[in-house]
Amino acid sequence: MHVMILGAAGMVGRKLVEKIAREPLVFGRPVTRLTLADAFQPPVPESLRPISTALTVDLAGAGAADRLIEGLPDLIFHLAAIVSGEAEADFDKGYAVNLDGTRALFDAVRQAGLTSAYVPRLVFASSIAVFGTPFPEVIPDEFFTTPLTSYGTQKAIAELLLADYSRRGIFDGIGIRLPTICVRPGAPNKAASGFFSNILREPLVGKEAVLPVSDSVRHWFASPRAAVGFFVHAATIDTARIGARRNLTMPGLSALVSEEIEALRRVAGDKAVALIKRVPDPVIERIVAGWPTQFDAERASSLGFKAETSFDEILKAHIEDELGGRIA
Amino acid sequence: MHVMILGAAGMVGRKLVEKIAREPLVFGRPVTRLTLADAFQPPVPESLRPISTALTVDLAGAGAADRLIEGLPDLIFHLAAIVSGEAEADFDKGYAVNLDGTRALFDAVRQAGLTSAYVPRLVFASSIAVFGTPFPEVIPDEFFTTPLTSYGTQKAIAELLLADYSRRGIFDGIGIRLPTICVRPGAPNKAASGFFSNILREPLVGKEAVLPVSDSVRHWFASPRAAVGFFVHAATIDTARIGARRNLTMPGLSALVSEEIEALRRVAGDKAVALIKRVPDPVIERIVAGWPTQFDAERASSLGFKAETSFDEILKAHIEDELGGRIA
Repeated sequence: MHVMILGAAGMVGRKLVEKIAREPLVFGRPVTRLTLADAFQPPVPESLRPISTALTVDLAGAGAADRLIEGLPDLIFHLAAIVSGEAEADFDKGYAVNLDGTRALFDAVRQAGLTSAYVPRLVFASSIAVFGTPFPEVIPDEFFTTPLTSYGTQKAIAELLLADYSRRGIFDGIGIRLPTICVRPGAPNKAASGFFSNILREPLVGKEAVLPVSDSVRHWFASPRAAVGFFVHAATIDTARIGARRNLTMPGLSALVSEEIEALRRVAGDKAVALIKRVPDPVIERIVAGWPTQFDAERASSLGFKAETSFDEILKAHIEDELGGRIA
Repeated sequence: MHVMILGAAGMVGRKLVEKIAREPLVFGRPVTRLTLADAFQPPVPESLRPISTALTVDLAGAGAADRLIEGLPDLIFHLAAIVSGEAEADFDKGYAVNLDGTRALFDAVRQAGLTSAYVPRLVFASSIAVFGTPFPEVIPDEFFTTPLTSYGTQKAIAELLLADYSRRGIFDGIGIRLPTICVRPGAPNKAASGFFSNILREPLVGKEAVLPVSDSVRHWFASPRAAVGFFVHAATIDTARIGARRNLTMPGLSALVSEEIEALRRVAGDKAVALIKRVPDPVIERIVAGWPTQFDAERASSLGFKAETSFDEILKAHIEDELGGRIA
């Protein structure tokens, strides 16, 4: 099968590619062709080079979507996006990529399907940013999407398009709303949510990390490993089980910052916890207060999507996947 | 103030124009300029001719939205749309007008606001088609939008854009989800929902009407008079009371077909009721079974939006507004 990953240079995209490299039958049949596209040059694992094409492409560019779909990929992962902060700061760029680029992709599939029996599976990375405050304590699967950012608006619109195009048989789509990914590998970044990962990742390698909010902040998490699992499951599930409501809030772990810290203590001891420096930041406190903290996610769970159920599991996944199973 | 009505040749658009003609201070200050636009030539009441410009325009046409906004209307009613059946039959046309045309309008306001302090009030006609089965018995204000038609998808997307553009201060928007309008004036049409009006309007003037569904079908109604009231209230309400969730399900009357018929009997007697011919139509039965039947609409009600509470009221409004207060 021909698999295409848009956003293949991003963190989850790269991990998905690595998964395919490790498990060539991950989708049930051999991946015979792999198209990796991103605004930045996507890395290609050695073992996949013979079947891979890596493209640096702007999804919003004229004709880009049509060229991507020319090869009629059987399975499309659409993870490409202008991230939340940038989409808020740059109105035109956010709408151009997250809305127009996505629609161009969907329409390119439609055009290809007008002259052939082409109906690919399409898995779309959505976000819990489609929801906006005020929230009930636990957000149910049928809660409405009233985003409070342009990014969340663009994701919610893409979800609606995905459902309509799927209903019309243009492609067989699934939108998956990811929890906050934790522990994010790599260097600390400036995302307001970065500290959730920083306070685990950095102390595990003997470095300090800043905690800008109180220990009693609650949030909604899944590991990068769980995220890759969501995409793989979405690629292979029988969509007849999903019906018309194609966008699913993924399961996750609702946990307090204090629970993160206690899991770190169990794994790496007091000396690791001592590396967390409390530097309250009212701006980040305020941003985080607007984020959802807990979902029911009953539909996705009953459809077989799985996330971690404790921070011990999340830490274990990080130590195995990023630190070769060893901590300092 | 300069008022613009897009979709001014449609049923509700015409009634809104007539309301302005009857009550020049309906929006609290004088309407000094009126721009009426539609894909069909919009009628202009005699008394409004001196201040009116009537335009036949395709909102999806190149540059159309920019030209409409050039005159910087203070209050914009956006009622223009490709209707449900046509948007389902003609994918391209539905998306071109209902999505691209609406976005072009919103972006034209944004462009105008970049070079002036222009932030108009914008009232958008949305629809309960943003909802899709299965429904709870009573649909709450926080129920999610999972439309099962392209029309409903396009309306739901426009709602999301409206909320985001309002949040950014580009315009001051309100989306109002109208119930099924009943009694619709004019000749019977082919809309699947037409019979709800036909079985009242036609017998009131001594004509037969076909009832294609059972008496026990429940649906969600408001009169044309109530619909005009919704638009007027949305134009004048303090939007600080609404907050970020700018799209409101309008109040309505949840009633059975049998309640329609009994109201007709009270007003016009058994001989009117005898003009209703029962001709079951399984296709229409099936379409109607997918429609919502009852909403809570608590938010809109608490914000002062008002609809009828009985079919007697709906009939009274029809007889006063369409039949000069007299029945045959």
